[in-house]
Amino acid sequence: MKKVSYVEDPEKWLEEFTFSVRTKVRFSETDMFGHMNNTVPFIYFEEARIEFLKSIDAFQKESDPSGTIPVAADLQCDYHKQIYFDDVLSVAVKIHYVGNTSYDLHYLVKNEEGAVCLTGRGRIVQIDAESGKPISIPREIKRAYEHQVSVAKG
Amino acid sequence: MKKVSYVEDPEKWLEEFTFSVRTKVRFSETDMFGHMNNTVPFIYFEEARIEFLKSIDAFQKESDPSGTIPVAADLQCDYHKQIYFDDVLSVAVKIHYVGNTSYDLHYLVKNEEGAVCLTGRGRIVQIDAESGKPISIPREIKRAYEHQVSVAKG
Amino acid sequence: MKKVSYVEDPEKWLEEFTFSVRTKVRFSETDMFGHMNNTVPFIYFEEARIEFLKSIDAFQKESDPSGTIPVAADLQCDYHKQIYFDDVLSVAVKIHYVGNTSYDLHYLVKNEEGAVCLTGRGRIVQIDAESGKPISIPREIKRAYEHQVSVAKG
Amino acid sequence: MKKVSYVEDPEKWLEEFTFSVRTKVRFSETDMFGHMNNTVPFIYFEEARIEFLKSIDAFQKESDPSGTIPVAADLQCDYHKQIYFDDVLSVAVKIHYVGNTSYDLHYLVKNEEGAVCLTGRGRIVQIDAESGKPISIPREIKRAYEHQVSVAKG
Repeated sequence: MKKVSYVEDPEKWLEEFTFSVRTKVRFSETDMFGHMNNTVPFIYFEEARIEFLKSIDAFQKESDPSGTIPVAADLQCDYHKQIYFDDVLSVAVKIHYVGNTSYDLHYLVKNEEGAVCLTGRGRIVQIDAESGKPISIPREIKRAYEHQVSVAKG
Repeated sequence: MKKVSYVEDPEKWLEEFTFSVRTKVRFSETDMFGHMNNTVPFIYFEEARIEFLKSIDAFQKESDPSGTIPVAADLQCDYHKQIYFDDVLSVAVKIHYVGNTSYDLHYLVKNEEGAVCLTGRGRIVQIDAESGKPISIPREIKRAYEHQVSVAKG
Repeated sequence: MKKVSYVEDPEKWLEEFTFSVRTKVRFSETDMFGHMNNTVPFIYFEEARIEFLKSIDAFQKESDPSGTIPVAADLQCDYHKQIYFDDVLSVAVKIHYVGNTSYDLHYLVKNEEGAVCLTGRGRIVQIDAESGKPISIPREIKRAYEHQVSVAKG
Repeated sequence: MKKVSYVEDPEKWLEEFTFSVRTKVRFSETDMFGHMNNTVPFIYFEEARIEFLKSIDAFQKESDPSGTIPVAADLQCDYHKQIYFDDVLSVAVKIHYVGNTSYDLHYLVKNEEGAVCLTGRGRIVQIDAESGKPISIPREIKRAYEHQVSVAKG
């Protein structure tokens, strides 16, 4: 795996992922260079992110009564290995950082041979849908992060 | 132009289009067969449809106070000529039929050489966003259709 | 199920589907009207079409030595019931017609409650990638169609 | 403009962009949260990147006789201000770094009011399409970068 700025200890980093979804590269996601187009990983990241948030009860389909939604503050992706039509991918997600009004998620995409194809990260900010102001993140995120850290410590 | 079921008189049909938008085929809209992917025309149709509705004052960005939205009842596309990356296209729209709760739009896509690349059509139904029941279409659609017919008659 | 031009006997038509794939509506496939965008069904149709062709050994990833590819001649979709984020859909495909250089596929999309959400059809033409001329369709298509017909007859 | 890691001097950085393309947010690019979906900026970045490379004669539509293609090594985007349907955006690109086998492009997206909505960057590597090995980048990139630097110095 090539060096990326948001990963200090690659071996440890790779082991910390425990949640993933499976996806298959669609024909419509390829481009005329014959591989998966470079805009597609962010679709996979979003799909895995939402499934992860659902799994820890932290995803609200609609702005809840308090009227808050999660929005992307930033997103990044490193392309380690080319991906092709019909490749079956595992898209893994974990929480990397938790603040008061935002949190960071990290992403890892492997192919069926177990090769690292993509890595990524992004910050999510919880905002009030009307005012656009940052507000407290769902407590389920904090709980899931604490659980993740305690498991990692063994 | 090959024969399509929704066009009786091709020469007349082609002449009736007076509104169009210009678009350029994005790299991300190609696929590994080296041409524009077959799912893309419907994106162009939607873009042209909305610009057309805006031009006749019949597009509401958000469900208006009466809470109605236009939804697709059906859509079809005929592929006459292959389209490639970077092709500059004109996407034309016209009203073909107007009913009480629905209307038909027809589509024509030509490349810079003036060759017919795509034709299409689709019915739009105006519905009450909450109940999902069909309701009267905006009167601007009826007016635009009457105007179109009177212009065609000369 | 509302009446559509390409279905004569709805009950019989619905029963003839034996192949399907499962998909889940992505967040990025919704639009600001709060439902699945109307351009998305054609992505699902393509995904199911390719899986179907693979299942009968009639899909070549790359133009084979004889240099032929399948291209869409036309596509159409009827929207029967609104589809929302996170809906789990079954996307079924069957062969409806087989000619010398083209064939028709029909599509049926149901939600988890078994309700018909989308129906569709489209003609595929087999062409020589270089000349663009129609050529004989893969014999696997003809065989699969004959098999389908004989099964339907019981 | 909020602080981002790849911009040292925001005022200077903003001034260095001289190339941009115009785009309008499509309805199909929104999501059920009512704004542009977070996967869309990368489509705009690619569109602007290719137009930029074409403008300096450094884009080959097809792998040239020497068989090389540019591929994304990484991509990142910071979301500064929400973007909505029908927003008209200017998507600017500049070269930020030039190496032997790769180069960095920076991106800036503003709305019609001139507000910074998105910033981004990404490294492009020139590779041999068959072996996948990095090779020398087109000399047009180096020339354009030198020109850009000399202009900036005044």
